[in-house]
Amino acid sequence: MHPRDSQLTPSSARVRAAAQLGRRSSRRRTGRYLVEGPQCVRELLRWEPEQAEDVFVTRDFLDRAGEFSELLAESSVHAHLVSDAVVRAIADADTPPGIVAVARWQPAELQHALAGLGDGFGAVLSEVRDPGNLGTVIRAADAAGAAFVVVTDASVDVTNPKVVRSTAGSLHHIDVVTGVSFPDLRQATAGTVRLVAADGYASTQLPAAQLEGPHLWVFGNEARGLPDDQVAACDDAVAVPLYGRAESLNLGTAAAVCLYASAMRRAS
Amino acid sequence: MHPRDSQLTPSSARVRAAAQLGRRSSRRRTGRYLVEGPQCVRELLRWEPEQAEDVFVTRDFLDRAGEFSELLAESSVHAHLVSDAVVRAIADADTPPGIVAVARWQPAELQHALAGLGDGFGAVLSEVRDPGNLGTVIRAADAAGAAFVVVTDASVDVTNPKVVRSTAGSLHHIDVVTGVSFPDLRQATAGTVRLVAADGYASTQLPAAQLEGPHLWVFGNEARGLPDDQVAACDDAVAVPLYGRAESLNLGTAAAVCLYASAMRRAS
Repeated sequence: MHPRDSQLTPSSARVRAAAQLGRRSSRRRTGRYLVEGPQCVRELLRWEPEQAEDVFVTRDFLDRAGEFSELLAESSVHAHLVSDAVVRAIADADTPPGIVAVARWQPAELQHALAGLGDGFGAVLSEVRDPGNLGTVIRAADAAGAAFVVVTDASVDVTNPKVVRSTAGSLHHIDVVTGVSFPDLRQATAGTVRLVAADGYASTQLPAAQLEGPHLWVFGNEARGLPDDQVAACDDAVAVPLYGRAESLNLGTAAAVCLYASAMRRAS
Repeated sequence: MHPRDSQLTPSSARVRAAAQLGRRSSRRRTGRYLVEGPQCVRELLRWEPEQAEDVFVTRDFLDRAGEFSELLAESSVHAHLVSDAVVRAIADADTPPGIVAVARWQPAELQHALAGLGDGFGAVLSEVRDPGNLGTVIRAADAAGAAFVVVTDASVDVTNPKVVRSTAGSLHHIDVVTGVSFPDLRQATAGTVRLVAADGYASTQLPAAQLEGPHLWVFGNEARGLPDDQVAACDDAVAVPLYGRAESLNLGTAAAVCLYASAMRRAS
């Protein structure tokens, strides 16, 4: 809908309810989350317009970013023209993004995601705790053409505002399965989809990894890696080789290298 | 040297001088910088002990991390046993790392680095402004076995504490050339070493890139990429393919994928 002038202030109930979505308890209770900044809101409106509920935007932002007038007009989202103070009151980021949205969170179903995997690959994040890392891996998985991402229930909340921002819109591009434990995942994939643990201690190195056929890369905690029992439960364990003196790569770069290895083998 | 009990307090001249190294002006004036936390200080002492000048460490930290007693005893660094308040006063990081060092900064010489390149590859960072990104790329270059990293003078200071921390010790593993402009670099490499621009708009995609022979990947600013004139001045421009809907990768992940492509072609 076309943006409408609103009388909303930082103390309006609707604004305070949106601002509450910075907290996990409020997101869990309402099933809603925040999407902040031009890139993320644009990707939400392009790829998941049916999940967008409210957009709070300043006149100044709309004047600078013309494409949004059209995007908003074409969607059924409630677009509120508000003051900068209202956007700041809602948004989690320190730098005022000019636009922030409230969206419904609809995780993908594991069975549905697996049914659509075909010969492709996906990514699993197990016990990942840093929001920036989680978002970076979701973005890399999207870029590499992964079919979906599974975030196990021992990981940071995918709808945490820092995760959402660091996906740079990819959260709205790729199916994300949540609410699944590692054992659930193992059971659901046994005999059909290979789980490949990314494990710095593995004897198989990436150039020699078997990446044909449907598989899911499994990435662990940024500090501790994957628990031994999860590595053991995977079908394969693969290390990104360290050719220099570094002891490890960080999670985001390691995941990007692994996911692109799968992608480029398919493309070649 | 064995750590010695010291009477240093947060207001001691030596402590205040070290704390000043959080500021670029002080680093430039003194040629010194800060190295914080167990991993970075350990790698400094292992790989560049001759550059380490002072280490400030708490008794509590030494009791927990026994390997440091030996590392310190074997080096000629001045090791001061201090209170947690002194370490906090010096360190830039919010979380108290228990150990912080002052080191001399000695950039590598471009001509020397190029002379040692052989058939290898390296990385160039041009106009990169985010300390975390710069550090992540240095770490990835180290892991991928790059011969050296060039950080052009239009980039963030390599000895910024956030850069140092995010290299996770790699700053002490790999030669880093600073104080060179992009035109200087182009002139020094013309006809001998290929410059390969990482450029999302390039028509050549990574799987088809020519990565044989000595080459330097050139990575640009995290938001704007490389300036057009720098892309044009490179011998090749290569894009990391985007197989999904993402508009781009972040700098750290894109650089890791490119550098590992060079590394794995050599290994295979």
